[in-house]
Amino acid sequence: MHLLKERILKDGRYLGGGILKVDAFINHQVDAGLMMACGQELARRFAPTRPEKVFTAEISGIAPALATGYYLRVPVVFARKHRPVTMPDQIFLTLTPSHTKGREVELMVSPEYLRAGERILIIDDFLASGETILGLVRLVQAAQAEVVGIGALIEKTFEGGRAKLASLGVPIEALARISALHDDGRIEFAE
Amino acid sequence: MHLLKERILKDGRYLGGGILKVDAFINHQVDAGLMMACGQELARRFAPTRPEKVFTAEISGIAPALATGYYLRVPVVFARKHRPVTMPDQIFLTLTPSHTKGREVELMVSPEYLRAGERILIIDDFLASGETILGLVRLVQAAQAEVVGIGALIEKTFEGGRAKLASLGVPIEALARISALHDDGRIEFAE
Repeated sequence: MHLLKERILKDGRYLGGGILKVDAFINHQVDAGLMMACGQELARRFAPTRPEKVFTAEISGIAPALATGYYLRVPVVFARKHRPVTMPDQIFLTLTPSHTKGREVELMVSPEYLRAGERILIIDDFLASGETILGLVRLVQAAQAEVVGIGALIEKTFEGGRAKLASLGVPIEALARISALHDDGRIEFAE
Repeated sequence: MHLLKERILKDGRYLGGGILKVDAFINHQVDAGLMMACGQELARRFAPTRPEKVFTAEISGIAPALATGYYLRVPVVFARKHRPVTMPDQIFLTLTPSHTKGREVELMVSPEYLRAGERILIIDDFLASGETILGLVRLVQAAQAEVVGIGALIEKTFEGGRAKLASLGVPIEALARISALHDDGRIEFAE
């Protein structure tokens, strides 16, 4: 997606260690117009998979998931990392390693909002190591629902996440696929 | 706003202790269409204040802030509660009491995204005790920016937040104003 790639080149900053800072338009400040356009494009690509719900992880997944769910006209569910007082006692919970936090984080969802047999589209801001998305996949499977697609705004192809998800046999889409981050700041796209 | 009030009556659940569960359409599962409609209405009400940016707090503020920022065509900034690795060393930080967590939480924002003189509209899901919004106000003031309005999806008028914010002299709007939550489950609106 041209619009997103252009913005990454303009306002993305490579901090070293594989970390691309996109805080200016995705992760701290959000360009709402760009985000809705990304959601519209993800919705267009996944409409043929007939998702009944969009599923993501808080925090950074919320904006792209909301935008995608809006254009698909389906509800959005975000997995929580901390249990709110409003959550029932019986929940689905999984652990997922966070390489930016250096420890495992919990991902949990209430069975009220993920039901057996539902067709689920997973959306996140990044597809990198794939660990967060694999955590979401485990929650969907625990609920006996079905993953029908996986979408991200930005993929870092060199972190291998896509290969880990391939066995699911569902379409995987990313709007900007980064194949290399160079120490001089250059950002290289896969296609 | 009729649409939101109707949904609160249909899917909101009073859990006791002043806690209204809206996880079915706002805080865990999000009705994306309703959320965008709420953002459109908040944008309509605050357009005369000419905001240059929408400011909120993660996590539950992100969806309503994104929707409002989209219709106002301005960027959205969300204050972080945990410092990401991408944040610079010099930041604005404030502490705010969280009555659902029973302790203080940090709210922080990078000076990159909140600038002196900017006209800031604060948006959150709830206006209850007002403490989170007061924390956001302190961050805006630390950046020498200007709060021009405060908007929420739902206000619990009996928690007194509005009075704490009155001295700012800016418009305060909530789309559904709840004046009482009764132990038998009845939800009463202010107007």
